[in-house]
Amino acid sequence: MEDKEISQAVIGRLPRYFRYLGELKDAGIERISSQDLSELMKVTASQIRQDFNNFGGFGQQGYGYNVEHLYTEIGRILGLDQQHHFIIVGAGNLGRALGNYINFEKRGFIFSGIFDQDPTLVGKEIRGVKIMPMDQIEEFIRGNDIDIAVLTIPKSGAVAVAEKLVKNGIKAIWNFAHVDLNVPEGIQVESVHLSDSLMKLSYNLSNSARN
Amino acid sequence: MEDKEISQAVIGRLPRYFRYLGELKDAGIERISSQDLSELMKVTASQIRQDFNNFGGFGQQGYGYNVEHLYTEIGRILGLDQQHHFIIVGAGNLGRALGNYINFEKRGFIFSGIFDQDPTLVGKEIRGVKIMPMDQIEEFIRGNDIDIAVLTIPKSGAVAVAEKLVKNGIKAIWNFAHVDLNVPEGIQVESVHLSDSLMKLSYNLSNSARN
Repeated sequence: MEDKEISQAVIGRLPRYFRYLGELKDAGIERISSQDLSELMKVTASQIRQDFNNFGGFGQQGYGYNVEHLYTEIGRILGLDQQHHFIIVGAGNLGRALGNYINFEKRGFIFSGIFDQDPTLVGKEIRGVKIMPMDQIEEFIRGNDIDIAVLTIPKSGAVAVAEKLVKNGIKAIWNFAHVDLNVPEGIQVESVHLSDSLMKLSYNLSNSARN
Repeated sequence: MEDKEISQAVIGRLPRYFRYLGELKDAGIERISSQDLSELMKVTASQIRQDFNNFGGFGQQGYGYNVEHLYTEIGRILGLDQQHHFIIVGAGNLGRALGNYINFEKRGFIFSGIFDQDPTLVGKEIRGVKIMPMDQIEEFIRGNDIDIAVLTIPKSGAVAVAEKLVKNGIKAIWNFAHVDLNVPEGIQVESVHLSDSLMKLSYNLSNSARN
């Protein structure tokens, strides 16, 4: 695969293709045309072909794509053939929910550590992983080949903690703190702003009531 | 405000404006130019003006926007001046995390009920709200003016549950189940696919390592 720059919009759509192809594969379907995939996913066939052309097109022939091949290839492009070790910073409700989510392991994301500043939480276990105090985080990252940090702390501390994580070798931050993080070039950030999503729903709800 | 159709891309950016304006307001800042807002938010001033023009432009004068006014107006557009009552369907880790998140109330989203099919969870409390069994959900929605349902159940049951919710008067679904919901016209769905977000991060991490 070429290393050319692919737009974040295309990349953002890849997981959805991967999800639908996984379901087709599980259902025993071996081939699918771009037309049928288009109807299933409610996107145009032209969009699908354009997206796939970023990666060489995946060799559709007259009778469609090979589902298993396409699933494997998109998974590989997404980096799911590699293992990543992640820590969770913040063992509140959301941090514990994410720590308990076993499906991440199926995709190669290994839950390796969880940290909190609250001494009453330290020592408790999430899926066999003990909650550690915040002052052990630097040593833990460096000693355990951790490349991803999940940030589930309030926004007040998030910027300073993110800086510390990056300084100690974290390459990617999955950010749930309600703040935009500015990180050095080469560090990846993906933010999930739950409140923003709820507000968008609120807008659409209010607007549909107005019409 | 006009009822014209505004693109979901613009609407998706409104919560971020609202967040930054709230921070400026809390910091005591009364006016800001589109140029300064542009630098703060790392989007172009032209993008800001285009976005705001969808709503009449908010009357920027030579010396910039009135922060308090803009914050209030965007909040009103987002429907945050109205109260909504929501239920959570699924009292697993994520459902409990969302039930415990008190900031939703500040924005007018009132946590009114939570449901689970697991009898060992029924009767337990999340912030004073008792977990109820799934077979009470229809009566509860109809009797308590519930307009939003937060769906935090596995994908296997999500489609059937969503249908039942809509049939009983739910107008908007905040969907965390890992499946796309097809709902009747007029019903709003906003999906948070956490795995999709993590896969996007994984792509960017793998791709930065390749380069």
